[in-house]
Amino acid sequence: MASQTTTSQNPSFVLQGIHSVKFEDRPVPELKNPHDVIVNVKYTGICGSDVHYWEHGAIGQFVVKNPMVLGHESAGVISKVGSAVTTVKVGDRVAMEPGVPCRRCEPCKAGKYNLCEKMAFAATPPYDGTLAKYYVLPEDFCYKLPESITLPEGALMEPLGVAVHIVRQASVTPGQTIVVFGAGPVGLLCCAVAKAFGALKIVAVDIQKPRLEFAQKFAATATFEPSKVSAAENAARLIEENDLGRGADVAIDASGVEPSVHTGIHVLRPGGTYVQGGMGRSEMNFPIMAACTKELNLKGSFRYGSGDYKLAVQLVASGRINVKELISRTVKFEDAEQAFKDVKSGMGIKTLIAGPDTAL
Amino acid sequence: MASQTTTSQNPSFVLQGIHSVKFEDRPVPELKNPHDVIVNVKYTGICGSDVHYWEHGAIGQFVVKNPMVLGHESAGVISKVGSAVTTVKVGDRVAMEPGVPCRRCEPCKAGKYNLCEKMAFAATPPYDGTLAKYYVLPEDFCYKLPESITLPEGALMEPLGVAVHIVRQASVTPGQTIVVFGAGPVGLLCCAVAKAFGALKIVAVDIQKPRLEFAQKFAATATFEPSKVSAAENAARLIEENDLGRGADVAIDASGVEPSVHTGIHVLRPGGTYVQGGMGRSEMNFPIMAACTKELNLKGSFRYGSGDYKLAVQLVASGRINVKELISRTVKFEDAEQAFKDVKSGMGIKTLIAGPDTAL
Amino acid sequence: MASQTTTSQNPSFVLQGIHSVKFEDRPVPELKNPHDVIVNVKYTGICGSDVHYWEHGAIGQFVVKNPMVLGHESAGVISKVGSAVTTVKVGDRVAMEPGVPCRRCEPCKAGKYNLCEKMAFAATPPYDGTLAKYYVLPEDFCYKLPESITLPEGALMEPLGVAVHIVRQASVTPGQTIVVFGAGPVGLLCCAVAKAFGALKIVAVDIQKPRLEFAQKFAATATFEPSKVSAAENAARLIEENDLGRGADVAIDASGVEPSVHTGIHVLRPGGTYVQGGMGRSEMNFPIMAACTKELNLKGSFRYGSGDYKLAVQLVASGRINVKELISRTVKFEDAEQAFKDVKSGMGIKTLIAGPDTAL
Amino acid sequence: MASQTTTSQNPSFVLQGIHSVKFEDRPVPELKNPHDVIVNVKYTGICGSDVHYWEHGAIGQFVVKNPMVLGHESAGVISKVGSAVTTVKVGDRVAMEPGVPCRRCEPCKAGKYNLCEKMAFAATPPYDGTLAKYYVLPEDFCYKLPESITLPEGALMEPLGVAVHIVRQASVTPGQTIVVFGAGPVGLLCCAVAKAFGALKIVAVDIQKPRLEFAQKFAATATFEPSKVSAAENAARLIEENDLGRGADVAIDASGVEPSVHTGIHVLRPGGTYVQGGMGRSEMNFPIMAACTKELNLKGSFRYGSGDYKLAVQLVASGRINVKELISRTVKFEDAEQAFKDVKSGMGIKTLIAGPDTAL
Repeated sequence: MASQTTTSQNPSFVLQGIHSVKFEDRPVPELKNPHDVIVNVKYTGICGSDVHYWEHGAIGQFVVKNPMVLGHESAGVISKVGSAVTTVKVGDRVAMEPGVPCRRCEPCKAGKYNLCEKMAFAATPPYDGTLAKYYVLPEDFCYKLPESITLPEGALMEPLGVAVHIVRQASVTPGQTIVVFGAGPVGLLCCAVAKAFGALKIVAVDIQKPRLEFAQKFAATATFEPSKVSAAENAARLIEENDLGRGADVAIDASGVEPSVHTGIHVLRPGGTYVQGGMGRSEMNFPIMAACTKELNLKGSFRYGSGDYKLAVQLVASGRINVKELISRTVKFEDAEQAFKDVKSGMGIKTLIAGPDTAL
Repeated sequence: MASQTTTSQNPSFVLQGIHSVKFEDRPVPELKNPHDVIVNVKYTGICGSDVHYWEHGAIGQFVVKNPMVLGHESAGVISKVGSAVTTVKVGDRVAMEPGVPCRRCEPCKAGKYNLCEKMAFAATPPYDGTLAKYYVLPEDFCYKLPESITLPEGALMEPLGVAVHIVRQASVTPGQTIVVFGAGPVGLLCCAVAKAFGALKIVAVDIQKPRLEFAQKFAATATFEPSKVSAAENAARLIEENDLGRGADVAIDASGVEPSVHTGIHVLRPGGTYVQGGMGRSEMNFPIMAACTKELNLKGSFRYGSGDYKLAVQLVASGRINVKELISRTVKFEDAEQAFKDVKSGMGIKTLIAGPDTAL
Repeated sequence: MASQTTTSQNPSFVLQGIHSVKFEDRPVPELKNPHDVIVNVKYTGICGSDVHYWEHGAIGQFVVKNPMVLGHESAGVISKVGSAVTTVKVGDRVAMEPGVPCRRCEPCKAGKYNLCEKMAFAATPPYDGTLAKYYVLPEDFCYKLPESITLPEGALMEPLGVAVHIVRQASVTPGQTIVVFGAGPVGLLCCAVAKAFGALKIVAVDIQKPRLEFAQKFAATATFEPSKVSAAENAARLIEENDLGRGADVAIDASGVEPSVHTGIHVLRPGGTYVQGGMGRSEMNFPIMAACTKELNLKGSFRYGSGDYKLAVQLVASGRINVKELISRTVKFEDAEQAFKDVKSGMGIKTLIAGPDTAL
Repeated sequence: MASQTTTSQNPSFVLQGIHSVKFEDRPVPELKNPHDVIVNVKYTGICGSDVHYWEHGAIGQFVVKNPMVLGHESAGVISKVGSAVTTVKVGDRVAMEPGVPCRRCEPCKAGKYNLCEKMAFAATPPYDGTLAKYYVLPEDFCYKLPESITLPEGALMEPLGVAVHIVRQASVTPGQTIVVFGAGPVGLLCCAVAKAFGALKIVAVDIQKPRLEFAQKFAATATFEPSKVSAAENAARLIEENDLGRGADVAIDASGVEPSVHTGIHVLRPGGTYVQGGMGRSEMNFPIMAACTKELNLKGSFRYGSGDYKLAVQLVASGRINVKELISRTVKFEDAEQAFKDVKSGMGIKTLIAGPDTAL
């Protein structure tokens, strides 16, 4: 069970091993680079990957070998700035982009820093996460929140950044028809971003009715609940019900499960685009010939990169996306472990954990 | 067994059913559109798809219900032109692009005529193929051969068009590293086209040593014979042997088999491009999470489209690609059935069938 | 002066020479192709190019040598269909795309049919226009209007198609900042389309205050009235007033005049995109080194092409763009000549001419 | 007149003012960043921009206010490495990319570091150049030369990088037809790069016959000497002589003069691409309506960016481009001033200045 030191300088929520977490008093981080700032973390969302590390101690090749602070969906207030910092100042409220690339490798210089060889990403071993009082970031990974965006909403910029990246990978353009598989936080935000990109029809697909109902209210223009028939048959019904002609322009999988992937391929028109946004089993059965003969464009989507966080903030600031509706509840820092258990059990859409010194 | 009528007006090699072919005397085709021409077919290559129809009577959804003339890799001489034809004249030697789109649907008008809803493609049911004396085409699907290209080479423009389309789908640019799986005609031509596009390293992969030896002489800069280890291990060895750093820029599958597909995905660097050119089983196990987290671009490639045949002719005319080396032998029209059997048994790289009135 | 025959079968408004027009009784057009339809034209907008032909008898290389029916911004009702027509039927209300390409040349097959070598465009010599009772078009150039779009609005699909094409040439994406020069019909519609594409800031520039006021109400998020200073100074002020940092992402010129072009180049950030949409003098002074060292992307935009009309209809049908507000007035067919004079004198935004049998 | 101190630690060739240069003993530079290296400069090419600063003391907005070391086209040998350097070691022969971006601004993170807001570029005020014994660079801006490339050739990677960037901006693909205006070093290298990118016809244009003769031997497939007729007439003749149909696919201006720019626009086919590579007057008369109605893509090209230097080295290493032929002569460091005078007078194609301790 977790325990908390109340007089700590940098209280942190640390994963010790599988299902083992602890509140630790860690040193306040230091500025290493004149462009760095220290952020006083105010709110942090719980992400599926955090829960996965807590449950399994690893995600694929990333194995937690030493105690690691969890959390990476955060917003906070600048508490200290390096000598070269010009774009933010102490007191600024910011969304925190939690992965800092090396800036020197080929992907970094080619505009694909999310594919950096040496990415230091919060709460991905061996890098500590943001569920602490203080966290260091370079100034250009802090995004000033306009007055219209609250700090809890600021924490939502992370999953929104994921969705922006997915929809950009899909090259969604106005007038297109989109099918989104999985109505969890990322799938819902993909619907919202697709709408902001001008998509005409946005069909949310899920096997849980309440999630479909939420999706319809939130951003989808239609919903689809798959039957226990083949993926091809589900795709045919989806196309017919939504009058999609030869098929949808874009399919986004935010579920990671095989039936969604298959239906996603079959629902597309020739020349359509499929983006794999959801994580699942490393290998699965796949309708490769349909993808080949329809000459589909298939893309992975990994985290977020150049311009994604900036656009996420703009979309919320301009009122095109309402992330507040996704926040189911906010718990105190000392209740972090219970919150992980609740998220694991499927409670709510997005749960936030307050920072150690955040007044709720 | 097949029989031939020597006095026929339009002798044609017709698939009647599975393993059943016949020489028929068909009517000489007529010009339906003022832009049409009649081509006297001189040479036709045998393609895997022809053999597949002969063996199975169907490819996927395309089922041979009525007798169908086989063949679609052809070159010939213009024998008649419609009233509006301006770009070719009687006597011109031409490569024949065997699929005519509707020109009116969305893909046609968007520059993707290979995805036309109503494509009439030679030797794809219900459309007759080119293994006949005469064949009708619109003038803009006939590509004049310069003097430097012979008619047998002209027949090779079809598989070369396929390879051009694949390499274009892969967006190969100078300096890149490419791995091509499968060293049959299309794989070999993909190597050659990639070289013409400026690829620096071109690794041909096959399980047959003689094909690798041919590939090395023909266009590959290196070859790789997979071991009986996992796809990931083969990929790691391929990368190491060829000094590819984080992986290849482009992988092209021209084999259609599962181990190649897996190795192709694992051999790519983050952000790399994979093109599925080879046909195989409609579904297979697939390393989808590697594709997702490396943010690969995956594309199908189907036939050929805008500008592909034109470039195929240019690449041969300018001496950058030597298709002659791929022609293993040329048989008489009346030996077509035996030729199909020989191709089925794996004989040679590319077998041509002479036209009914072609002097060998 | 123009005169009208009331009992005519296909009354047409014909340009005879400079400032000389006549109502003529022309034969009802025939269906030449089984995919053709005849449209009973109901409303036609007057375009600057129509007025230019009427005033000058030519636009650039296009010289009116024989009498030519004017008009190309039209909507109407299908009155007859060819034998192969499947997508529209008699009685359907349609927007009419007035340029029919050859479908066979390289640009046509490459998805750029607006650059067709043999384009037959309404009211561009030697092709007659749509200011007549009947007009022939292929079915795929007729766009069915949903119930929510009236026929007068349908006539506006033409300038909206122009704007869609311009904004697509500019590759506008969500979050971008756009400056549009010229607040006439096309400039105004560019503002509206840019907004539908997700642009965040849209600055309309014009030298007439009332047009700026209209632009602000219609679609712009800000306006700018240039001062009598250099283009660089105007650009600097525009950037400062709108907080555009290093400059705008996109500049669109819908004015065709030199000061706008210069300001457009200077207002862009490095790497920004400039689209020349407005027609003007064939040559002008140009800040070429700024374009070079800022590595701008500059593009022309010519008419409309693949998917533009379709998207125009969708944008209006989905309520994202309100074209009705641009219609200043509608005049009777027999008042066409006076309407040309009024447009020439600058009256209103968009004037429509009713069809010969349209009940006003 | 310039004088040289023989016992100096870091002898440098310093521009004091217009036509005033001096050899100075400067301090050996220090490693500021653990990723930095010190290069012992061995060869430096003289660029037109160096000569321009020497003659005019400024280029556009860049004004030499304080003494500035000249030179930026250099290759050398690593003499010291920072603590974090892993990709090069002392003794490595390297081509030196002379502009170091901030790595933090939007263009940097979007893959366009040549448009960096805070670029520190050698011999662009206020930054010193490479005509010195020692120069500091980050390791990732040093490109190891394979054995097949000599150090003098290594200095040519700079103008070759410029040409690679231009040809990439032009998106040259195999089979295309290219016209290059100006047969100086950059124009000649553009011809060579276009050939390596698979261009089929490469027409070099210049007003000096000897340069055209060199171009023909070096890389062009044809040459064109403009007559004293209009740009449109010259373009028409160029198209006819080279059988370019509706026009060239790509035009590159490496001359910066108005007649070339005009001919470049007129020589293009509809939908063609024009790249402004040469620097000239800040404003000039421009055929803007031809660019608009042909829907051309016009692009600037500024220095070089992601991947350009790497590809330059690969193209030479793989034998596709022979830069040696462009080196007219190499002079001693102490003869630098005379070399500037000679280049100014038009002597040779590319003159190199040896480093202070280079044995000739």
